[in-house]
Amino acid sequence: MPRYRFKVEYDGTPYYGWQRQVGFMSVQQALEEAFEQFTQHKVTVFGAGRTDTGVHALGQVAHIDLEREWRPGKIMEAANGILKVNDHLVSLIDCEEAEDGFDARFSAKKRHYRYRIVNRWAPLTIDRHRAWWVKKPLDADAMHEAAQHLVGHYDFTTFRSINCQAKSPMKTLEQLDVRRIGGDEIEIIAVSRSFLHNQVRSMAGSLKMVGEGKWTADDLAAARDALDRNACGPVAPSCGLYLVKVDY
Amino acid sequence: MPRYRFKVEYDGTPYYGWQRQVGFMSVQQALEEAFEQFTQHKVTVFGAGRTDTGVHALGQVAHIDLEREWRPGKIMEAANGILKVNDHLVSLIDCEEAEDGFDARFSAKKRHYRYRIVNRWAPLTIDRHRAWWVKKPLDADAMHEAAQHLVGHYDFTTFRSINCQAKSPMKTLEQLDVRRIGGDEIEIIAVSRSFLHNQVRSMAGSLKMVGEGKWTADDLAAARDALDRNACGPVAPSCGLYLVKVDY
Repeated sequence: MPRYRFKVEYDGTPYYGWQRQVGFMSVQQALEEAFEQFTQHKVTVFGAGRTDTGVHALGQVAHIDLEREWRPGKIMEAANGILKVNDHLVSLIDCEEAEDGFDARFSAKKRHYRYRIVNRWAPLTIDRHRAWWVKKPLDADAMHEAAQHLVGHYDFTTFRSINCQAKSPMKTLEQLDVRRIGGDEIEIIAVSRSFLHNQVRSMAGSLKMVGEGKWTADDLAAARDALDRNACGPVAPSCGLYLVKVDY
Repeated sequence: MPRYRFKVEYDGTPYYGWQRQVGFMSVQQALEEAFEQFTQHKVTVFGAGRTDTGVHALGQVAHIDLEREWRPGKIMEAANGILKVNDHLVSLIDCEEAEDGFDARFSAKKRHYRYRIVNRWAPLTIDRHRAWWVKKPLDADAMHEAAQHLVGHYDFTTFRSINCQAKSPMKTLEQLDVRRIGGDEIEIIAVSRSFLHNQVRSMAGSLKMVGEGKWTADDLAAARDALDRNACGPVAPSCGLYLVKVDY
């Protein structure tokens, strides 16, 4: 069975996350239904990152095995056509035949996430469901400085959902940058080979504590060393999180 | 009666335009209901630009007369609170007492609009209702060059809705810039003291004809000189249009 890899963009707002589940529409299900409709056989989609409810993707990567050869352009055209007819906010933005042994999840070398905060007094309109609205002025430089305490090889138990199913809480965070862009917006970039469940949102929520002056950089380091979920700041909402790209 | 001016941002998608009309929710009505709820008297909102159904604003300006003095911060807080409770995608981002004789519409010196095109093969997800999706590759440089034929003092009859109620079709377009940003996106910036009804969308639709090579720059100039609505390119959809700011 030929394997295809594709890049997919979605607005996570109306979906119960990436992963298929009974009774709730997921991005995976939207895609599988589209592939099954034009291939006329069962298709399972394997994604690089299992994004949560409301989390967006600009460059999620996934793979599928099809029963016969298709031109990648034809796959994109057919899938996007069906997704659009079904009124899904999911779109294939690239597709190619996968090299031997390629697996969207297990071959991934790095995952890049962006977390968007709009830091202003007025409620959001155009950015509603697309960023975290934080009214209190945040010190992005202090957030960036503190964030460097989380870069490296650490036990991220503090920043991990109690539902996280990873065997080990050890991860190597390669990059965690915070910067203010365009006045009102603060962007957090997080890069790692892989992340624990809720890790980026847990770190973003803790960095917000630093940004509003409730925590020092040392408090963030202490939260990390506590290895205790209760030491984490309030988890940032899903609407601000974007899976930007996956490196292989 | 003290007069207040304020800046307002909105996602135009769910509204039947700026202007109040019976039976359809407009931005003006959303605002008037919010002001009336906390002032407990009738309030009329006067805006700088009467944006159409689906058109967005980042910096629409409007004024209101209230029966007594209010702190501008209090007006913003109360109005935004009520707008949010009513689930409106409308937000006051600035408010101040207006100088004598200020009129949001008639005192305006320049209006700045942005038109967003996302020029790519894949259907839009996060940008759906926020930009015009154009699949065919567009030549932004050719569009920019042609656009300069519309800058200046002209009769814009070709680029004017047949429903336009302006007395004269003569306008002075101060700026019409087209540029490609971030790969997939093309941005058109239009600046003028005032615009005719549908003028920006009519120009954007005609510039798209240039961008896809169906029209030359001379064809655009000829369309302008035809002074004939039928010479206009297909009008660009409202979802790509943003009222960015108003100068006084």
